[in-house]
Amino acid sequence: MTAPIVITMGDACGIGPEIIAKAFASGAAQGAVVMGDAAVMRRALALTGQGTSLAVLERASDAAACPPNCVPLLQATGLPGDLLQAPMGQVDARAGAAAGACITQAVSLVRAGEASAIVTAPIHKEALAAAGITHPGHTEMLQALAAEPGRPLPPVRMMLANDELRTVLVTIHMSLRRAIDAVTYEAVLETLRIADRAARSFGLASPRIAVAGLNPHAGEGGLFGDEELRIIGPAIEAARAEGIAASGPYAPDTVFMRARHTASHPSEFDLVVAMTHDHGLIPVKYLGVEQGVNVTLGLPFVRTSPDHGTAFDIAGTGRADPASLIAALRMARQLSA
Amino acid sequence: MTAPIVITMGDACGIGPEIIAKAFASGAAQGAVVMGDAAVMRRALALTGQGTSLAVLERASDAAACPPNCVPLLQATGLPGDLLQAPMGQVDARAGAAAGACITQAVSLVRAGEASAIVTAPIHKEALAAAGITHPGHTEMLQALAAEPGRPLPPVRMMLANDELRTVLVTIHMSLRRAIDAVTYEAVLETLRIADRAARSFGLASPRIAVAGLNPHAGEGGLFGDEELRIIGPAIEAARAEGIAASGPYAPDTVFMRARHTASHPSEFDLVVAMTHDHGLIPVKYLGVEQGVNVTLGLPFVRTSPDHGTAFDIAGTGRADPASLIAALRMARQLSA
Repeated sequence: MTAPIVITMGDACGIGPEIIAKAFASGAAQGAVVMGDAAVMRRALALTGQGTSLAVLERASDAAACPPNCVPLLQATGLPGDLLQAPMGQVDARAGAAAGACITQAVSLVRAGEASAIVTAPIHKEALAAAGITHPGHTEMLQALAAEPGRPLPPVRMMLANDELRTVLVTIHMSLRRAIDAVTYEAVLETLRIADRAARSFGLASPRIAVAGLNPHAGEGGLFGDEELRIIGPAIEAARAEGIAASGPYAPDTVFMRARHTASHPSEFDLVVAMTHDHGLIPVKYLGVEQGVNVTLGLPFVRTSPDHGTAFDIAGTGRADPASLIAALRMARQLSA
Repeated sequence: MTAPIVITMGDACGIGPEIIAKAFASGAAQGAVVMGDAAVMRRALALTGQGTSLAVLERASDAAACPPNCVPLLQATGLPGDLLQAPMGQVDARAGAAAGACITQAVSLVRAGEASAIVTAPIHKEALAAAGITHPGHTEMLQALAAEPGRPLPPVRMMLANDELRTVLVTIHMSLRRAIDAVTYEAVLETLRIADRAARSFGLASPRIAVAGLNPHAGEGGLFGDEELRIIGPAIEAARAEGIAASGPYAPDTVFMRARHTASHPSEFDLVVAMTHDHGLIPVKYLGVEQGVNVTLGLPFVRTSPDHGTAFDIAGTGRADPASLIAALRMARQLSA
């Protein structure tokens, strides 16, 4: 029997607990277990009014025996005692500390083999910072938790995927000017290795990886920039020499269309490696942000998350849409099967 | 009665003449007139085998009287005598010279009020260059032809549009590194003015213009680049002070999704101003390049074109798809109505 997926509760003042409650009520989270706080989750169940109840478990493996309409929870330890006092929709150090504790304990669970994958509900980076956690976000925190003692951090990359398209990003949260400098031979080649390894672990035998250029028309032979000739092309060649089915660099404006997969439009590629945050995310989000799933590649376990934040503006109203969390659960199930 | 739309023949060695023949055969070009060469167009009619015949006109206004299944043509003057000898699918100075002459004469026609708009079939910039024409493309050539003697060139911008989305670009054919430098206060403000004026001329009373940022998350308050704070934000403020309904800067990865217009997803904005070629073109092309239309804004006349090139690889086979040319004709008709 497979171990359950563990869902981290996220920031208690954001929509995380509410979308988790809704995902269980819909049946889409059946078999998963929440790492969080019982009082916060009970409040979320009341806020969303879905008639579900909470079951505080001793062991993750008990989740399978949990009846429908029941949210199985592992009580995270060491949480602030007055967590429920943190006001909804606001940055609060208590919520940041609790969110961090849930992530740490979820990683322990999956590394012990008691969970099969981690799905993370949204956290707020200012709340983390207020709690003295220096990681700017999930990815960096998971990377640190996944590192072997005394060894360098494992290189990771962000993949954003929906049913039609998967993109893996060479650079993410930095200015476009810095991103251009960060597009190095090593960074592109490492991204191709991570993307290839991950796609094989998803069950693709020889993943067809398209590499988008950095410049308009992929540089038009050097006329509109030479990064394709100096950096991206050689990195693709090196990856091919390692047996990776990478091709390109292709013009950024048409490669995503070519990689789009629908019943009537079979894709030419299994995934696209994009040089910048927005080249990669614009096409995934274009048809609707609610189906986008964020996957961290390169970790020694599967981690997915919904592609949105804590939505403080609607936290506590019960109106948050669980669609992206449900898509993240579905993706985690596929990737860890 | 409105004057006809004039379609320039494009590069005689590319797919231009064939897609023009197919557009007329489908009925979609009814009422338009071709500026081109009779022998080249007769060859295209034979290649596409659509049973249409050619009518060489004296005056553009005779196009309206042309029966269906007939392609009305104005014979461009001063073309190379051996134009038919230029081999299909290859760069040829004769084809470049002819393409240039057709554009020049089409502009004269529209400036004389004998045509209502220009739709340009694809040209090949190397063929233009081989013919000694120094303009790198249509846009620059039309800009020069539109300039008043002794006055500076009119500032123009490229718009790419389909039925769901319109984007106007601040920068186009240059490296991403140079594009970042070209995102100036003046360039953004001028783009907003051109976009607003054009959208009003298309019949929108107070066009809602969304401005996409340059950096991920539109700079995240300066954390990922400061162009939004230093340049783009102030340019939006200045445009608003001039009565332009501009807003932003918005995160590039979600603004296009928000501007996408379908029956079930009404758009929040009428058009998006994008800082870079690929931010703007990735979403327009994502659902299929065949419906994208390129519109040059800022000229004293309407000019549209299909969003593809000469496709030398299939020129002469009769297989080229006229869908984008047909979309360009429809757009030109709307914009010049």
